[in-house]
Amino acid sequence: MTTASVILIGDELLSGTFTDENGPYLIRRFRELGVQLQRLVVVRDTLDAIASEVAACAASSTYVVTTGGVGPTHDDLTLEGIARAFGLGLEVRPELLALMAEHGMAVTPMTQRMATLPAGATLHAREGAGKLGRYPVIQVRNVFVFPGVPALMRAKFEHIADRLVGAQAATGRLWADNEESTVADALAEVAARFPEVAIGSYPRFGEATGALMLTFQASSAEPVRAAIEACRPWLRVLRVEAP
Amino acid sequence: MTTASVILIGDELLSGTFTDENGPYLIRRFRELGVQLQRLVVVRDTLDAIASEVAACAASSTYVVTTGGVGPTHDDLTLEGIARAFGLGLEVRPELLALMAEHGMAVTPMTQRMATLPAGATLHAREGAGKLGRYPVIQVRNVFVFPGVPALMRAKFEHIADRLVGAQAATGRLWADNEESTVADALAEVAARFPEVAIGSYPRFGEATGALMLTFQASSAEPVRAAIEACRPWLRVLRVEAP
Repeated sequence: MTTASVILIGDELLSGTFTDENGPYLIRRFRELGVQLQRLVVVRDTLDAIASEVAACAASSTYVVTTGGVGPTHDDLTLEGIARAFGLGLEVRPELLALMAEHGMAVTPMTQRMATLPAGATLHAREGAGKLGRYPVIQVRNVFVFPGVPALMRAKFEHIADRLVGAQAATGRLWADNEESTVADALAEVAARFPEVAIGSYPRFGEATGALMLTFQASSAEPVRAAIEACRPWLRVLRVEAP
Repeated sequence: MTTASVILIGDELLSGTFTDENGPYLIRRFRELGVQLQRLVVVRDTLDAIASEVAACAASSTYVVTTGGVGPTHDDLTLEGIARAFGLGLEVRPELLALMAEHGMAVTPMTQRMATLPAGATLHAREGAGKLGRYPVIQVRNVFVFPGVPALMRAKFEHIADRLVGAQAATGRLWADNEESTVADALAEVAARFPEVAIGSYPRFGEATGALMLTFQASSAEPVRAAIEACRPWLRVLRVEAP
């Protein structure tokens, strides 16, 4: 199974200065791409937090996506954190300096800093007018690095999304007019009979109509349909979405 | 400084079956309570993921809040994960069985399971009518355990929020009509002169009016005001919010 982890980097997300928009976007896109998202983490702008999270996620997921912390200011520590996670040095990339010079930016400590990447990073060139097209997407081993500004992040993510495609999954949903606590034992039996189907149970009281929603996910449609049928006899079914 | 970590537990949040509402709520409430949120993590419904995240967060933050995974079904593993994180056994709590009996629930494997908590857990009793008032808030060491359903989570969180108050922080914000890359060096100097002030720099191009937003945070108002004044000479200031 193709898996991913998302690391959202920035004090501003944890303090509530900005509301994160990148997490919901990436959750939706990974689902559409058939990639199982294993973990989504919001961390502070510190080298330790970034490096330890990148190291853990890179070891446990097929792909890692980071957002934020890639600008020119003192609180932009993502690339240095990724280098530390993998024990890599940092190197100035002349092609990035040349790109900035093309756009009229003089060589300063700031441009040097923005052109300094973990050793051996892959640059995925991007076409396009204006700022959205200025920089390539940076990849370090299985980690893809994106800016935090949502419009930029989305444009850059879509540029490389076709590299991240996983296996398509079959999913089903069932809504029932039952209270979760009264059907938990019967549901546990179905879950034990269909170990290849991931079954979720979500009470919705106080939130929406339909007391209970069950979700079913597997690598093919057949076991999803069979597990749904196994639940029907002991539920007051309101609605079913089967694959 | 009083700190917190939030762990949102549930496959449904990572697959996009539900959009999380608890994260934004807790981010706002911890800011209002003066507690520095250090980390927010969404993890899957597995014992390993829950136990390792709880252990890491409990060791590094003053408080940990979990949401989700506390219902009666097979995918509800939060309490077992917390027990594993701390190396605690599990024990049936007779006062919870009595509470369920009062509400007309017979003793079944399911009610037994819902009454089984990590050894030594503290129960914060709650008053109130109906389901929102039925269960106490569970605390295990510095970890507070909440359900995933947003209305329930909010009601229970507010019941114990006064236990989580931290030191109030002073914050300021400044909007300027400058591009971040042209002021990064000057900003780095101000950040070095005021090490007690956490300064954030956020380009907003393509997102809103005002090219750049700077944020300032410290434990008192004086250094925040001084750092803002130190930035004025080299910025085209649009607006300032000072403490």
